[in-house]
Amino acid sequence: MTPESAARRPGRRPGSADTRGEILAAARRVFAEKGFDKATVRGIAREAKVDPALVHHYFDTKEGMFAAAMRLPVTPHQVIPLLLEGPREEIGERLVRFILRATSAPETREPMVALIRSAMTNEQAATMFREFISNALLYQVADRLEVPHLRVEAAFAQMFGMVMARHVIKLEPMASATPDELVELLAPTVQRYFAG
Amino acid sequence: MTPESAARRPGRRPGSADTRGEILAAARRVFAEKGFDKATVRGIAREAKVDPALVHHYFDTKEGMFAAAMRLPVTPHQVIPLLLEGPREEIGERLVRFILRATSAPETREPMVALIRSAMTNEQAATMFREFISNALLYQVADRLEVPHLRVEAAFAQMFGMVMARHVIKLEPMASATPDELVELLAPTVQRYFAG
Repeated sequence: MTPESAARRPGRRPGSADTRGEILAAARRVFAEKGFDKATVRGIAREAKVDPALVHHYFDTKEGMFAAAMRLPVTPHQVIPLLLEGPREEIGERLVRFILRATSAPETREPMVALIRSAMTNEQAATMFREFISNALLYQVADRLEVPHLRVEAAFAQMFGMVMARHVIKLEPMASATPDELVELLAPTVQRYFAG
Repeated sequence: MTPESAARRPGRRPGSADTRGEILAAARRVFAEKGFDKATVRGIAREAKVDPALVHHYFDTKEGMFAAAMRLPVTPHQVIPLLLEGPREEIGERLVRFILRATSAPETREPMVALIRSAMTNEQAATMFREFISNALLYQVADRLEVPHLRVEAAFAQMFGMVMARHVIKLEPMASATPDELVELLAPTVQRYFAG
């Protein structure tokens, strides 16, 4: 997605750009206030002053709305099928390549880094991030693959640390390493956690 | 170290508590302004308006001064001998146990988390943190153990992600996992990076 396409909204449905934007702005306020778990589609519709059916028209799930509101490049609906499809012994490589791809362009990486920054400096944002990451992402992945939650969190910690070291702390040589170098190094780690 | 013992300074040498505190305050200003690499003992002495010999009286090295100024529980002078002493095939376990111990008590963990928080939200703090972590810690460890820098950074990323997931994002079950559970899970990962 280019910054242009993210800025321009569909445009074919006059007025809908604003409605979608207003729903997302309402979602950001409700998620920040209530956290991910306690926020509801109904509550977000009320905050946006629209019918809940309209919220469902734009967003299938609360997870999808959260990802759109926070402009996250990594959503449960992408990650879960990615991990389930294809050989189980290549899960580590698929996940590492996906995370590297999702974080390679600044326009997809920056919203995620912004969310992490607020989670690290603000208790409410930390709660929202923790609930989303665990209930909507990590526990789903763990349960579908029948892997203990702690092992999936160890894989998350490795990926989280890599993205921070590469793009925020900008440690060299990690910041300039090629995707293939990082896959060679990190995929066996992730594979081991998922095989456990 | 209890908060009490950290707050009370030696005390046997009257007046020295203030001098040491003034040197550390000067060090924080100089490190923040110049980063870790360009800061010098001489420059810190000038900022603190004391003789460089007095700075050396309190702190053996620039690394030691940085760790004291930032109240870091993990210093190069502890980590490097820890990794070099004892069987090479147990490096992963030694490192994971050391990091878990150093981050278990809030009074030693919080200053480190505070430094990471500033590094994630402030470009100058990021430079200072990056230079210290790479030049004073990771490259030293890598060179002494003859391990490629990238592999040591992968181990750093795993440990960094674990500490953030456990103590800042507070993901469960990772936040409540016992040290032994985490050693079992993470030590083989770190061992593999150091064996490469």
